[in-house]
Amino acid sequence: MKGTVLYGPRDIRFEERDDPKIIKPTDAIIRISATCVCGSDLWPYRGLQPVSEPTPMGHEYCGIVEEVGSAVRSVKPGQFVIGSFATSDNTCPHCQAVYQSSCLDREWMLRAQASVLRVPHADGTLVATPAVPSKDMIPSLLTLSDVMGTGWFAAVAADVKPGKTVAVVGDGAVGLLGVLSAKQMGAGRIIAMSRHEKRQKLAREFGATDIVTERGDEGVARIKELTKGIGADSVLECVGTQESMMQAIGSTRPGGSIGYVGVPHGVELDGQQLFFSHVRLHGGPAPVRRFLPDLIDLVWKEKINPGKVFDLTLPLDQVAEGYRAMDERRAIKTLLRP
Amino acid sequence: MKGTVLYGPRDIRFEERDDPKIIKPTDAIIRISATCVCGSDLWPYRGLQPVSEPTPMGHEYCGIVEEVGSAVRSVKPGQFVIGSFATSDNTCPHCQAVYQSSCLDREWMLRAQASVLRVPHADGTLVATPAVPSKDMIPSLLTLSDVMGTGWFAAVAADVKPGKTVAVVGDGAVGLLGVLSAKQMGAGRIIAMSRHEKRQKLAREFGATDIVTERGDEGVARIKELTKGIGADSVLECVGTQESMMQAIGSTRPGGSIGYVGVPHGVELDGQQLFFSHVRLHGGPAPVRRFLPDLIDLVWKEKINPGKVFDLTLPLDQVAEGYRAMDERRAIKTLLRP
Repeated sequence: MKGTVLYGPRDIRFEERDDPKIIKPTDAIIRISATCVCGSDLWPYRGLQPVSEPTPMGHEYCGIVEEVGSAVRSVKPGQFVIGSFATSDNTCPHCQAVYQSSCLDREWMLRAQASVLRVPHADGTLVATPAVPSKDMIPSLLTLSDVMGTGWFAAVAADVKPGKTVAVVGDGAVGLLGVLSAKQMGAGRIIAMSRHEKRQKLAREFGATDIVTERGDEGVARIKELTKGIGADSVLECVGTQESMMQAIGSTRPGGSIGYVGVPHGVELDGQQLFFSHVRLHGGPAPVRRFLPDLIDLVWKEKINPGKVFDLTLPLDQVAEGYRAMDERRAIKTLLRP
Repeated sequence: MKGTVLYGPRDIRFEERDDPKIIKPTDAIIRISATCVCGSDLWPYRGLQPVSEPTPMGHEYCGIVEEVGSAVRSVKPGQFVIGSFATSDNTCPHCQAVYQSSCLDREWMLRAQASVLRVPHADGTLVATPAVPSKDMIPSLLTLSDVMGTGWFAAVAADVKPGKTVAVVGDGAVGLLGVLSAKQMGAGRIIAMSRHEKRQKLAREFGATDIVTERGDEGVARIKELTKGIGADSVLECVGTQESMMQAIGSTRPGGSIGYVGVPHGVELDGQQLFFSHVRLHGGPAPVRRFLPDLIDLVWKEKINPGKVFDLTLPLDQVAEGYRAMDERRAIKTLLRP
């Protein structure tokens, strides 16, 4: 089997690796139908999060179950399944509190940009679709593995409610799907912060009512202007930098909520500034498993089409070009087909 | 009239000042029945938040209305009133969103350790009691001006729910009243973190079911041990230091909530650590005005007795000794009677 390995900054290779095998009775082996490159993959790709050894890549996946361990009950060979980027047993206290991405048995999925994948805790991690989907539906189903679940969690964590005003910081795939999520939850006004025409267009298609091109303090001032000096009720922070977090805090009204899902890199929050902002802050790795059944249903019934964030589709063996296109912002998100 | 002025570190003076007068038609003048020293007063008293000039002190107050401006409608001379440490018009969008302590017209009250006080935005700041209270009830009513409202807000912000497990970081008056608030809201288990016998006793009286004497990482480990490795559902952070905030974050289960009300001094939060903790964070200056009507009702019906936090009562002219006793932790909280 062949898979994707990062050797160092911008050195992505697609090379022969051992076939994954059932190791524990709770494992499943799936044949990947589609995988993709995540914005968070770009941190190590760019050397901003150095790797000390050749590192297999990929954590977004869907595909057909090939084999299951003896203890697996909820999925079976032949089914099409989607799983979270974080495994979960779905029975521990954190899972029962629907924070499956903090499962006491959590493992981070790390080898999904490949043709075959071992998924630990298959029962608690994978959810099967009602039937094997058409090829056209696969991109949207794939997004549920991380990017769509993460945008959805941002909106949930930011307490998006019908009729309310939402601002979205970040126009990557997560931010764009945050817009879609806010729309689906009934937000009255959705302000997307973006300065890229192509992304602005998709944001509008997903439900954005306003576009703000300014950033930093100017971006905050513009949001305040659009909200009569008050700030947004809910802000989705979908980047993970100091600037984006400050932009989110400054854009939220007192008592409003920020859902932050961009993995923070070098972010330091000043306690006193946060205190006097009066905002609510919630985020972290999205508990994708919580949302999978409902989101599969929405995709299956064609009520949402999050797969539109994929504006580049490549054969898996061209994965290196997939990273390059995203790194250079030529592509919003790259889908890879084995 | 005489009032309290801070001249520099540990230099508190009680001296002659001009009588407060109605300046705006929305002002009221009240004759103070009781005032007190706040934990937050100790920051400038200790020189940790230096004052550049002689600074009048005090922001907790209750008393009898003497005079009102021409625009004041909701309170009248002769009534006993309690007001927040932050004024509010109670009509602006932030007030309507019940974050009155972020009122667009907010002024911080700063001169309440005196015999007479001017209160701006009287209609939106003051709430009258059903009648002039007995002398015995005044300490409990006084706490509603800040310390009890702040403990209550900590519990609200930490989303305390019936039957849930609550931990309280800080055994000052706010922390102790956080315990009382959690009890009143039906918490199933209330873990007070305290190493002072007298405060432990009061915490138990207010409803604490467990006492943890350890601090920092050891404190976190003890909370984890008491909660089967999970952490508390709600944590009230009532101190405002780096250590107390880290203790709160470490003690909260993923998806659990922290209400932080200790004004942060030198607190820096690492974005990535916060992200992976999966906690909810909400706090800030308590919107005391939101809670005043309900809390007055609870005190009036003798369902709560928050005035028990005052373990030292002095005539106002001995205010300097009141500060000293709290600074040296001989007193939990000092009540001052003009």
